[in-house]
Amino acid sequence: MNQVFVDALVSIAGTDGILRDGDVQGRSAGMLRPDTLQANLLVRPKTTAQVAAILKLCNDTRQPVVTQGGLTGLVHGADAAPDELILSLERMNAIEEVDPLQRVAVVQAGVTLQALQDAVEKQDLSFPLDLGARGSATLGGNAATNAGGNRVIRYGMMRDMVLGVEAVLADGSVVSSLNRMIKNNAGYDLKQLFIGSEGTLGVITRLVLRLRERPRSQNVAFVAIDGFDRLTAFLKHMDGALGGSLSAFEAMWREFYQLVTTAPAKSSPPLPQGHAYYVLVESLGADQALDGARLEAALEAALQQGLIADAAIARSERERAAIWALRDDVMQTARHGMPFVFDVSLPIAAMEAYVAEVRAALATRWPQHHCWVFGHLGDGNLHLAIRPAEARGDTHAEVEAMVYTPLANIGGSISAEHGVGLEKKPYLHLSRNATEVALMRALKRSFDPNNILNPGKII
Amino acid sequence: MNQVFVDALVSIAGTDGILRDGDVQGRSAGMLRPDTLQANLLVRPKTTAQVAAILKLCNDTRQPVVTQGGLTGLVHGADAAPDELILSLERMNAIEEVDPLQRVAVVQAGVTLQALQDAVEKQDLSFPLDLGARGSATLGGNAATNAGGNRVIRYGMMRDMVLGVEAVLADGSVVSSLNRMIKNNAGYDLKQLFIGSEGTLGVITRLVLRLRERPRSQNVAFVAIDGFDRLTAFLKHMDGALGGSLSAFEAMWREFYQLVTTAPAKSSPPLPQGHAYYVLVESLGADQALDGARLEAALEAALQQGLIADAAIARSERERAAIWALRDDVMQTARHGMPFVFDVSLPIAAMEAYVAEVRAALATRWPQHHCWVFGHLGDGNLHLAIRPAEARGDTHAEVEAMVYTPLANIGGSISAEHGVGLEKKPYLHLSRNATEVALMRALKRSFDPNNILNPGKII
Repeated sequence: MNQVFVDALVSIAGTDGILRDGDVQGRSAGMLRPDTLQANLLVRPKTTAQVAAILKLCNDTRQPVVTQGGLTGLVHGADAAPDELILSLERMNAIEEVDPLQRVAVVQAGVTLQALQDAVEKQDLSFPLDLGARGSATLGGNAATNAGGNRVIRYGMMRDMVLGVEAVLADGSVVSSLNRMIKNNAGYDLKQLFIGSEGTLGVITRLVLRLRERPRSQNVAFVAIDGFDRLTAFLKHMDGALGGSLSAFEAMWREFYQLVTTAPAKSSPPLPQGHAYYVLVESLGADQALDGARLEAALEAALQQGLIADAAIARSERERAAIWALRDDVMQTARHGMPFVFDVSLPIAAMEAYVAEVRAALATRWPQHHCWVFGHLGDGNLHLAIRPAEARGDTHAEVEAMVYTPLANIGGSISAEHGVGLEKKPYLHLSRNATEVALMRALKRSFDPNNILNPGKII
Repeated sequence: MNQVFVDALVSIAGTDGILRDGDVQGRSAGMLRPDTLQANLLVRPKTTAQVAAILKLCNDTRQPVVTQGGLTGLVHGADAAPDELILSLERMNAIEEVDPLQRVAVVQAGVTLQALQDAVEKQDLSFPLDLGARGSATLGGNAATNAGGNRVIRYGMMRDMVLGVEAVLADGSVVSSLNRMIKNNAGYDLKQLFIGSEGTLGVITRLVLRLRERPRSQNVAFVAIDGFDRLTAFLKHMDGALGGSLSAFEAMWREFYQLVTTAPAKSSPPLPQGHAYYVLVESLGADQALDGARLEAALEAALQQGLIADAAIARSERERAAIWALRDDVMQTARHGMPFVFDVSLPIAAMEAYVAEVRAALATRWPQHHCWVFGHLGDGNLHLAIRPAEARGDTHAEVEAMVYTPLANIGGSISAEHGVGLEKKPYLHLSRNATEVALMRALKRSFDPNNILNPGKII
């Protein structure tokens, strides 16, 4: 990047708005990553007007731009090459407004998920998106990637919580569409274009987010199940029996449960190991005792119907946290070295055979592999953490093929909630047909004719 | 339309696939409308391939096309001029699949909402979109207009229930994006473009819809409230106290309640007339007795806190239906001649002053006017039925200006759930800024460069 360009950037964002060379390259490339940023230049605007001026400059000079939030993505969606400009929204981190009557928050894109969760809780409200990276992940990033997480079964994905966006287009024009209402059918719903498009169609700068009343009860149970048919029947049973309060249905395959409840993991097993499946069931409701009784009655009925083999109900905040902790102790899968982690979705009816097919392929190739399966069953979303016996670089593509290829025939998706980025781009054709990809390309060309926004990602 | 074009249409859709002249013009122009269709030609394909061939033909010959479903829209969004071809999806009316495990239905666009509701109920499932026109409105139309209705507060709008779409573009290419999973982040979410764009970006031919477990309990209460502050506080109270089961919060202003509970209306008043506001509260849950007790306890708490002045709880299916019947008896507003009906959304904090402003403007112009207000308060959505003393044609625009103009300053929307069509097009600028409209136009040009799809609607 030449000095004229850098001078222009400084005139927009100020000297302290620019980081160069070592100051950029000393920063981590992201959560769980050993490498550091490669770009030579990072700009961190403070206002939407600065973002607009930066994008206009980049568009005029054909300078590629990679927008970065909390760098918690898992698909290399925010990777920046040395010659790409990093646009970091770290200084646009104000919660501008929390309105308890309208039940909306207006935030800048760089606010972390946890900062918003904490702020609204003080007003007896809840922002129900939740995921492990909450402390670093930004709301702008959550929107750009349409984040999912643990409570999608009840509240939907980030897309369902965004009422309005302000975004800057590639040419620097600002689309301010900061709607605050649940219903607004005045023309095309433009915000949908920026949600989940991973920064390739525009840069989200501000958001209006839907809030909920804070749940007044949390009840958690843990169950063991001995067959996949029973697992899916149990999901339907609980969804019906809890009357709208079911907020998580987190399934674990046997090996995952054994891993996270065996030392050196810190969790002790709430139920004996060795069953085929385990599920964390949560209800968020209005009355601790009433909702607890309802959960218990539903579990008793499930036991009587033979759907579940065993159940433990958390009786205290400590016990609830302990059950969530074993579900969240995903880092145990790194015990033998970092595994390859996958995020797929598929029809529930195809899941059992799909997991068996992946396991069989792994076993043929690497008799000593590890394969831990867990996920948000109610959403059709599985995570697989796979560690071949020898995890050299070139095994990743082999494992990817084993995990992704079978999805094509069963209508599954190579990305449930992690996005595509660079990592899944070679496999996009397994989940999207040629017409869909052509339409994506047409949208990209229409919104970003010079291909400056996160170029090369997704498609 | 020349004979060559008609012959080509016949070769695609068959002789019985075409209606001409009187056979078209004998058909009603839609629900609550006195007029009939004006077009000379109507084609009713049976398959997506036929739709694709028809659109290709129209695109090649620059023939404008208006897609029609159940003709229950209220904004002239499906009106067709004499020289426009009507594309009716009435013969694509098969429910192709109901999958109780995955909890999805695959339907053709011409299936009516009620047909799907009835079909899934037989499998102990629910499709929770609901609105008065359910018997005629088609699911394709519901998607094209992003329909709302009575239970948005719990289940969202049609957009939130569509998992996948198949749509035909203006050039006849078929975008098959029939995803069945709740989570699918494999690239841009293309279906969003076709939902709510009123047939201007493509023709929806098939849909994958999300189903829910059938609610096992329904409890309904009716309350009277004496101040707007208390009305909004009561909404927050009930939303928190019902723990996820609140499924409707239908507010009525005093005049509407009096109208629908006074002869010749058939409903008798469950509570005395004369309070400022009334609300129908519904919970859908899992256990009739438990959920009823919870509703009653929440109402008692609201009484003790002074939020509500009076309450009646329905004790039987008959009483529940009676309360819903008075809310749904909107046709009483036609007692003095057809009123102008409006559908707007706005921030809750601005509602009281907004309604007062509209009333004041009406009173100044027509001392003898009627203005009935009711709506889905939890969604920020009000309906106003207005009947000036003399309702000559030219008064409509005057009343529209009174209703829509004040929305601009408070961030309201000229359309909450009815769409824009032709009727609201002159007012779109009050709710969308120039950049938003420019982006809509760019999308329209990109998807439909020859402007053949429902031309002139929305923008």
